[in-house]
This record gives sequence, C-alpha cells and structure tokens, in this order.
Amino acid sequence: MKACIIGSTGYAGQQLASLLLKHPKITHLFLGSFGSANEPMAERYRHLSHIIPCQLMQSELLLAPQFLKEQGIDILFFALPHSVSSQWIGKIMGYNLPIKIIDLGADFRIKDLKTYTQWYGDHPHPSLLPKATYGLTELNPEGIKNSTLIANPGCYATATLLAAHPAVEAEIIGHTPLIVDAKSGISGAGRQGNVDNLFAEISENMRPYHVGEHRHIPEIEQSLGCSILFSPSVVPMSRGMISAVYSPLSKKCSLTYVKRLYQDAYRNSHYIRFVETPPITKAVRGSNFADIWLHIDERTQTFVSMVAIDNLMKGASGQAVQNMNLMMGFDETLGLEQVPLYP
Amino acid sequence: MKACIIGSTGYAGQQLASLLLKHPKITHLFLGSFGSANEPMAERYRHLSHIIPCQLMQSELLLAPQFLKEQGIDILFFALPHSVSSQWIGKIMGYNLPIKIIDLGADFRIKDLKTYTQWYGDHPHPSLLPKATYGLTELNPEGIKNSTLIANPGCYATATLLAAHPAVEAEIIGHTPLIVDAKSGISGAGRQGNVDNLFAEISENMRPYHVGEHRHIPEIEQSLGCSILFSPSVVPMSRGMISAVYSPLSKKCSLTYVKRLYQDAYRNSHYIRFVETPPITKAVRGSNFADIWLHIDERTQTFVSMVAIDNLMKGASGQAVQNMNLMMGFDETLGLEQVPLYP
Amino acid sequence: MKACIIGSTGYAGQQLASLLLKHPKITHLFLGSFGSANEPMAERYRHLSHIIPCQLMQSELLLAPQFLKEQGIDILFFALPHSVSSQWIGKIMGYNLPIKIIDLGADFRIKDLKTYTQWYGDHPHPSLLPKATYGLTELNPEGIKNSTLIANPGCYATATLLAAHPAVEAEIIGHTPLIVDAKSGISGAGRQGNVDNLFAEISENMRPYHVGEHRHIPEIEQSLGCSILFSPSVVPMSRGMISAVYSPLSKKCSLTYVKRLYQDAYRNSHYIRFVETPPITKAVRGSNFADIWLHIDERTQTFVSMVAIDNLMKGASGQAVQNMNLMMGFDETLGLEQVPLYP
Amino acid sequence: MKACIIGSTGYAGQQLASLLLKHPKITHLFLGSFGSANEPMAERYRHLSHIIPCQLMQSELLLAPQFLKEQGIDILFFALPHSVSSQWIGKIMGYNLPIKIIDLGADFRIKDLKTYTQWYGDHPHPSLLPKATYGLTELNPEGIKNSTLIANPGCYATATLLAAHPAVEAEIIGHTPLIVDAKSGISGAGRQGNVDNLFAEISENMRPYHVGEHRHIPEIEQSLGCSILFSPSVVPMSRGMISAVYSPLSKKCSLTYVKRLYQDAYRNSHYIRFVETPPITKAVRGSNFADIWLHIDERTQTFVSMVAIDNLMKGASGQAVQNMNLMMGFDETLGLEQVPLYP
Repeated sequence: MKACIIGSTGYAGQQLASLLLKHPKITHLFLGSFGSANEPMAERYRHLSHIIPCQLMQSELLLAPQFLKEQGIDILFFALPHSVSSQWIGKIMGYNLPIKIIDLGADFRIKDLKTYTQWYGDHPHPSLLPKATYGLTELNPEGIKNSTLIANPGCYATATLLAAHPAVEAEIIGHTPLIVDAKSGISGAGRQGNVDNLFAEISENMRPYHVGEHRHIPEIEQSLGCSILFSPSVVPMSRGMISAVYSPLSKKCSLTYVKRLYQDAYRNSHYIRFVETPPITKAVRGSNFADIWLHIDERTQTFVSMVAIDNLMKGASGQAVQNMNLMMGFDETLGLEQVPLYP
Repeated sequence: MKACIIGSTGYAGQQLASLLLKHPKITHLFLGSFGSANEPMAERYRHLSHIIPCQLMQSELLLAPQFLKEQGIDILFFALPHSVSSQWIGKIMGYNLPIKIIDLGADFRIKDLKTYTQWYGDHPHPSLLPKATYGLTELNPEGIKNSTLIANPGCYATATLLAAHPAVEAEIIGHTPLIVDAKSGISGAGRQGNVDNLFAEISENMRPYHVGEHRHIPEIEQSLGCSILFSPSVVPMSRGMISAVYSPLSKKCSLTYVKRLYQDAYRNSHYIRFVETPPITKAVRGSNFADIWLHIDERTQTFVSMVAIDNLMKGASGQAVQNMNLMMGFDETLGLEQVPLYP
Repeated sequence: MKACIIGSTGYAGQQLASLLLKHPKITHLFLGSFGSANEPMAERYRHLSHIIPCQLMQSELLLAPQFLKEQGIDILFFALPHSVSSQWIGKIMGYNLPIKIIDLGADFRIKDLKTYTQWYGDHPHPSLLPKATYGLTELNPEGIKNSTLIANPGCYATATLLAAHPAVEAEIIGHTPLIVDAKSGISGAGRQGNVDNLFAEISENMRPYHVGEHRHIPEIEQSLGCSILFSPSVVPMSRGMISAVYSPLSKKCSLTYVKRLYQDAYRNSHYIRFVETPPITKAVRGSNFADIWLHIDERTQTFVSMVAIDNLMKGASGQAVQNMNLMMGFDETLGLEQVPLYP
Repeated sequence: MKACIIGSTGYAGQQLASLLLKHPKITHLFLGSFGSANEPMAERYRHLSHIIPCQLMQSELLLAPQFLKEQGIDILFFALPHSVSSQWIGKIMGYNLPIKIIDLGADFRIKDLKTYTQWYGDHPHPSLLPKATYGLTELNPEGIKNSTLIANPGCYATATLLAAHPAVEAEIIGHTPLIVDAKSGISGAGRQGNVDNLFAEISENMRPYHVGEHRHIPEIEQSLGCSILFSPSVVPMSRGMISAVYSPLSKKCSLTYVKRLYQDAYRNSHYIRFVETPPITKAVRGSNFADIWLHIDERTQTFVSMVAIDNLMKGASGQAVQNMNLMMGFDETLGLEQVPLYP
C-alpha cells in the first residue's frame, strides 16, 4: 500500500508518519509539506534521524493527478488547518481515482452547513459534506469500513464522545446539558511559535480557555444529539487528555447497569479499557488506548464518566490509522500495538 | 508578637514559617516538630539556609503551659494531620492563657459532629467544635476578628467557596447539586515519600481521584448550604489550584448581574482579583491572591465560576496569616505582599 | 523462547517486560517478584492493563531448578539491587542448565574484586566474576555473542563509554583524567517512595549528587583504562540522559579525524547515530538509540563528546534485549524497533 | 527615588519591575517599551494585575532629556537586546544629567573592543566602553559604588565567575583551560515565540547548545584572566542555573584551604551561601542567593566548584537591584529579601 501525508510537519503529522512508517501494510510513504519541501524530515524532527530518511516533498506535487495515478497512491491523509484540506479534497474526488482519504482537520466533521459556518466561517466545498463519514471508530465501525472519505474527529470530541455516547443513547443522561470539563496536554496546540505555549509559560501553570466556545463543541453535540457546556483546559504536559462528563441522572439506575451499557457498546472495541479507578493519562501515553471510568455519585445522583487518551494517538493519528485499517479491511490493531511509554 | 508553629516540616508548615519570619509584627518564631526536634530547619529545607537559622524544637515542649506562659506566646499555628491538633488544643484552651490559635488541619472545620464522624471518623474533642470559627477570610471577616480559635479551610474548600458562595447566597445556583471540577498541584499531598507522587509518576500525567469522596466536601457543603459533586484531580505542577464550579442557572440572569453580585460580596477583599479571561495558576503562584472568573454560557444557560489560588498560600498558610492579621487587628495584607513569582 | 524477569516491578523491570512481551521470538514470559507475588502486573503499572494480563510470580519459584528445567527457560534477566542477583546466579550456574543470564545489576560489572569491594562492599560470589562478560554491546559484540552471563552496564557507564571509548583507545585523550558531566532523568533512581524524588522536589530543580563518588565510576574506568572525574546530576525529567566528556587533547588532531575514528569504531552499530549539533534526550526517548556528537573546541584545544540515551532503554532494558539478541544469534534490532516518542 | 526600566516586557524586565515596585526607596517607577506602549503591563503579565496598575510607556518618551530632567529620574535600567542600549546610553550621557545607569544587556561587558567585535559584531558606541564598570557585585563592590554606568553581567557569567574567581586568583587553577558545564532554565532564552522553546519541545528534554561559542565566554575570560571551555545546556525548568567548574589543580591543596580562600573572598557578601552538598536550583528560586559548593576529588586531583543561582534574580534583575543599592549607598539587601519559593 502506498500512502501520502499532506501536512507532515505538525505534531499530528509527524506522529502519523511514525505510525505509517512501521505499519506492516504500507510499502511506500510520501511526506508532503506546503512550506518546507526538500528539507529532510529528520531535520525538523531529530528523533526521526535514521528512521525516516526521506525528504519532505511539495504537497502540490503529491496531490497532482499524474503523481497519484502513476504512483498508485491508495490513501491520502490530510493534517492541515481547517478550510485548507477541503479545497484539495474537492479536486481529488473529481479525478475519480480509487483513493481513500482521511482528513484529520475539521472540514468534514460537521454535517450541517449552518452549524459549520457558525463555528468555523464559510466552508470552501459544502457539497462534499454529505460524502464524509465521521470517524469516531468505536461509534461507527461499519460506516467507516464502507467510506472513502473520513472526517477524523477532534481530540476533545473523541474523548468526550467515548465517555458520554452510550449513556446518552440509553437516555440516562442528555435531557439537560452535559457538563464536560476536559484537560489536555499542550501538543494539541501544535508546533507554532506561540508565546503562550512556551515552556516558561506552561510549566507550573494550568490554563482554562475557550469555555463554551471551543470548536470541538458542535461535533460533540452532533454525535450526541444533546447540548453540552464544554470547558477545556491546558495542563502542563506535552501529551495526554482527560475528558470528564458530569450530568444529573434522568432516571435512577445502578452503576452495574451503566457499566453493562458501556461494555455492550464497546464489546468489540480493542482499544477501550475499562478501569476501576479514575483514568490517568500516563497509562495511555504513546498508545491508541482509551481508558474509561464510570461512576455514579450516590449522594448527588450524578453520573460521572471519564476517558483518558493520548491526544496525538487516539485523539488524532492513532485513530486515523485505526480508521485506515477498517477502510482497508485490515485488523484494526495493525501498526497500533505500541505499549504505552511509562514512566 | 511571639508565634509558634506546631508541625513545621510539611509543605504548608515551611511556607508558614517563611511568611511569619518576614512578618513585621512577629518578633519571635518557634518551629515545633514532633518527629524531628533539634534538627536545623535548613537541613530539611535547604532554601531556608541563612534565612531560618534556628533548630526545630520539640512540639511537646512548645505546648507545655510553662513555656507558653513564660515566653508569652501570642499565637499558635497547628499544621498537623487531622485528629492530632484537637487533642492538644483541648488541653491548651484549658490553661486559660490569652493565646489565639489557628488550626490548618481539619479538626474544627465541621460544625456538625455527625457529619464530621461520617467523613473523618471519631472526633477527639467534640465539645470544642462550637468554639471554632471557620476561617474563609472573605466570607466571615468579622467573625474571624472576634475569634480565638480559627479552623483554617482546606485548599479545595477555599477555591470552591470563593467561586460559588455569592451565587448560592443570591440563589441563582444551588437548587440542584453543583458540579465542581477542581485541579491541584501535588504539593497539597504533602512531603511524604509516596510512590504515587514521585516525579516519574506525576510528570506528563493527570490523575483524578477521590471523586465524590474527598474530605473537603463536607466543609464546602456546610458553608454553601447546598450539595456538590466534587471531582478533584492532580495535575503535574508543584503549586497551584483551580476550582471550576458549574451549574444550570435557577433563574435567568445576566453576566453583568452576576459580576455585580460578586463585586459586592468581595468589595473589601484585597486578595480577590476579578479577571476577564479564565484564571491561570501561574498568575497567583507564591501570593495570597485568588483570581475569579465569572461566565454565563448562553447556549446552555450554565453558570460558570472559576477561582485560581496558590494552594499553599491562599489555600493554606497565606490565609492563615491573613486570619492572624484580622484576629490581631492588623491590616490584612501585613506580611502578605509577595508579588507572584513569574515565570 | 522462554524468558523470566527476576525483579519486574522496578522501572527497568517493567520496561524490560514491555519489550520482551512484544519480542517476536519470546513465546513465554514469566515475571518474578520477591515481594509482590500473585499481584497482577497491571495493578502495579496501569499502562500494562490488557497488555500484560499475567500476575507476578514468586521469584523463588521461578528460580527453582525444577521450574527452570520443566519449563525449558532459555534466558533469565535479573533486575535487582546489587549483591542480591549474584547469590541466585551462583546457584543457577551450579545446575548446569543451558540457560543464559543477563544481570542488569552491578554484581558482575567489575572484574577486579578489590575494586568491587572498595565501591560496593563484600561480593557474595567472587568466583563468578571472571565468568561474566561486560555487556556494552557496541564495544564487545563478539564477546557478548559467546557469553552465557552478561553484566549489563550501568546507564551512566553506557553513555559515557560510548562517548569516550574510541578516543581513549586512539590515545587522543586519556593521558589526564577525563572530566565527565552527566545528567539524568529521575527514573534512574527507581520507584521507591523517596522524599527527594517527589514531583514537588524534582520539578523546577536540578540536583548534582555523588560527585566523584558514583558507583558507575569503576566500571567506566575499567573499560577505558584511564581515570575520570565523574559529576552526575538529576534534571527534572523522567527519562533521558546525556553524558558529556571533556578533555584536553593529548595530540593535535582534526574534528574530521575524530569523527572517522568514531565512525570506524561504530560502523556496524545500528543504534549509534552521529548528530551534527549537540544531542537532545527527547530525540531518543523510548528507543534504543545513542546519539553521539563530537566536537573540538579550537580555542582551548578541548575534546568534547556527548552522548544522549534513554536511561531505561539503551541505558538498561533496551541494551539487555540487544545483548540477548546477540547471545541468541538474532538480529540485534529484534524487538527494538520503537520509534522515539515525540513530543 | 525615581527609576525607569527601558525594555520592561521581557522576563528579566518584568522581574526587575516586580523588585523595584516593592523597593522601599523607589517612589516612582516608569516602565518603558519600544513596541508595546500604552498597553497595561498587567495585560502582558497577568500576575501583575492589581500590583502594577500602570501602562507601559513609550521608551523614546522616557529617554527624552526633558522627561528625565523634569521628572528628576535617578536611575535608568536597560533590558534590551545587545547593541540597542548603547546607542541610547551614548545620547543620555551627553545630557550631563545626574542619572545612574544599569545595563542588563551585553553592550558594556567587554572592555576590549576587538574581543567585543569578534563575539558580537560592531559596537555602536566604543568610546563608552572604558566608562562602564562590570557589575559582578561580589567581585568589585567598591568599583560599583563609585560607578555611574554598570554593565550587569550575564547569568552564566555570574554563576561561573562566583564559582571560579577566588581559585583562579589564588592560582590553584587557571594554568590550563577550565572546563565549565553550565545548565539553565529556559527563561534565559526570553519570551519570544520560538518553536524550540515550546513546552512540548523543552519538557522531558535536555539540550546542550553553543558549546564553546556562547557569548558569555568573553566576559568570563576577561574577569578570570584565563581561558575556558564553556558548555551550556537548557534543562526543562523555567528558572534556575547551575554552573560547574572543573579543573586539575595546579598545586596540591586541601579542601580546607580552598574553602578558606572562598570564605575570605566572599566574607562580606550577604548573598553567598556555602553549602555542604552540591547546590540545587530550587533552594535559590525567586531569591538573590548564590549557593556555592566546593570540592576536591582526591582520586583525580580535580578541583570542582558549583554555583546555583536564579538566572532572573542573581543572574539578572536581582543583581541589578543589588548594584543599584551599592551605587546609591543603600544596604545591598534593600528590596532583595525574598525567601526562595519552595517547593
């Protein structure tokens, strides 16, 4: 199989490159960049020295129809700022090539154009919206298998949906807005030279931000069918995310019942681990696992669900590979067997 | 003024020692320890070399009536595990000396014995409970001024109460259990050699714990008069705490109205700072400030209030000094003028 | 192949378990512990949930001759405090079983009994010292292939020897004591509940220690044949190590010459990467790579060599697996193909 | 006293502002900025909210002769990139006002123009070089008292000179190039949005850089009169620095002798603390202390001296205030009595 990554130089892009490079079915991997073509990848990311020997290639070149055809590219990954990928994907879908596409950006996550516009502004290619499948693997594996265009979910959306979806579907929560307090490592903010994300600013600091305004809100609400108060924070770590979902119960039910709900919902899901104490990010670091903890606070009759993921793995590139595996008919764990790095 | 600290070797104890040492009204400071008497304080805490030249003294000695009388001790601070301080305080109050007491532990925080017993187990000296004043400075300055025994609040309680109290009192929230998601640096866990708190375990990690079970819950509910779902987490930093309070509004009200409520409630409070974006822990580090951010999420009609404090300062020793200042009739800022250390 | 780890619950032990578990030639892996038998490994290390399902076994049981024989154990790894492993290894070598042994501790690193005694105290089994091979893979691959008892080097020794050995052998340095300033993440200190290694103590801190007295000194001097001033420090990170070797040049020589020396010495060494700017620990994290940077400071005619490794990988468990591969006649990279985790 | 800071928005500038604000002799403080005038300082640095209420002012305005004269400014601090401050200082010295100047930049640190040019490029105002006094307080207190233009030393230079100067002066080291391995927190790199200094790059990382090429080398060599191999590294912390000086002894001497040398040299120095185990950065954080540890390695006859400072305090702004105190005839500790912040 031959794969291209368009946008290889961000944190998600390089993580994806590392995964695909070791993927047993990928024989050829091309790394595209709009800004840094002809630079060796290992100059950008020193850890990839002797591992990814190739240079970054011009993204425009990789996306040209003759290149895609002649090379016989099987799958394209896009890891770009929103509104950029859809412009290219529109063109490529016009070539009628047998190429599958996974977009790690936001362009195809929202089905409703009005909602998209409200949160992101104009969409460059609205007619494509119905063609994309929302790629939260555990919630829609069959849909993903049959799709050729995947909208890979946002990291906060992945953690929050895994935490809340079975309970909302079973209608034990969701009648009132869910309270979601989510915490993330800073790598989610990307590799831009932003003063706010300097070590000296982030260390020994905790920073809530975009409360009620974060762009992952509409994709979460779309999948849940209920509204959420979403409150994200940056915590002083590079990787890792925990989303905590709180809600009064809409009907009395036992923890046993809730656990069974979730176990049913995720019974075929290799990467879901149920844990008996609240999840910790370090237990999933560098892996595709999502650790789920379920709790009912008897005193206040509050439902609590927490999910820990690695924001660059299950929250981005790991899930992209997992989705690729499904789309290609592979076992979902192919190339995703990393043991979490501890300590 | 002459002061003793009983329990000087914990993180709160040493912070208190640093503050009292530089306090303009304290002329004599005695540092007591049950386990490490006769050791120089600066051996335990290297940063105090050349600053605190004295040795730790036997706590039992400092608490003996002849010592208290002969030295003319004016104030005693206790920073001990719960159920230890009340045993001593019971004795001392029997001596009828003009000594004021501030207990940084939990023994006197709960007024209702049954509630205390339920969360902490048996109380060694229940008859003292009515004599203590709960020392959340901003909520009860007059009571504190007239008290001789202060129960200094827990760090989580301080942040949460500052965030929620005016809104509950105005009855815009509190009709349903509040959702409180609080995050703390690890110094709150003390200086015990606990594997879970090693650098290699805490760094790049985030750890929710004691959800619905944390012992600061009853003192928060006692002061608010409503129930809370309390969900604390350890984040990888040494100092700092943010408590986020979420609740559906019980009646529609504007953010302007809410802000005015809080400004009124804290109009004479030197250490309350209202901030226009969510608070960050680094902005209060090393100081006694509490930064409050108020928000109403229009989409979900959710009330949000966040408070950032330094858990060892406003969350423990800073507030203890602030309370001492009130009890002694000093300006509340005396010895508490530290500029936050940044970055 | 069947393998046992004796001492699986330390940081090096669990890293080794993770590596062997995914090693393509290992079919059976037994995890031994002296203190925590019958506990599931995943309770100790939450990241291993669903990955290492087995319980810890009694080390005494795994080391009994009948177990070793009946199970047909091929290789034993020891990750124990010094002076413990040699007692067991003495016994096992008496059974005359075809078992290979790799000791990650210090018991067999020093050839000279007097030197051992001076740095470590009495040796429980001195007669074994000549039978062991010092397992710095790149310096002695042929010896390791033919050995049945490997003394796996210390982490500081690995980094320092890789940095200095070719230059000392070529006699361009070594006529005067080398200055070695080495920096390590805290995981090297193990998973004991030591106050000094709490997050609140290590974060925002840098701590030199054991200057001129660290127990890795004699094994470094033994391999180099010259003396060193060794100055180690703990830096606030979990994993990673850099050793910097400084020395006046004993004869004028060019950087080109020095580089060629090292490239020759390490020409067949897969895990040596030469880098053109000083090495960084994050580029090797989670991998077995050793990044080497060579420099000659023209102004002062000083030789500089720096090596970065992951202290738990090339500095301990990764090198143990690499040595196992050689001993078993496998490719040295088997089970060691992890891409460094970045960021 | 009235003071201006020209360049208030960097990490050193804001630290200086915090110190001067609380200085008992400063009645008026003006904060200048070339780029961000009219912005409240507390918008740049949220911790200064309610502490520094004033806006940043146009630096050009503060430096105009009428402003300086009318306001009666007593002292000017410059915290600017090199080659900028000297242009302004040249002008100001032409006005013949009774203003003292402390430059935290590099423009006046090097006495020899050729050396300056070699390391920094052209000097904008070479004729001023002889008029400046190098402001390493402990090495030249009398000179500083009588100076009106102070070149405040670099952070690495401060730590290294305090560690090496008495020994070089006593000629027990210095006959061969000293080996200096120095480690710094990242705040020394400033508050620019540089990708290399992002949290995700610096955390869990250690990064040697500019080995043999760092611009603090010439000022160290100038003060010592001998040459050094200087090897700095960034370690993952915000503040703090340790410089370790290594050298073979030029003549046999005892540790007692060496300690007495240093105690004599620093006998009147309030901020020098001799420590009996290697110094740690956390013990000086937020304070002006310099902790010195002296050692002789008997085995290799190597002299070792280590100094820990807070790079923004004794390494920059703290020392600037200390120098101001001397220039003004105040006690050197005025406004510098901060207890280190621990943990």
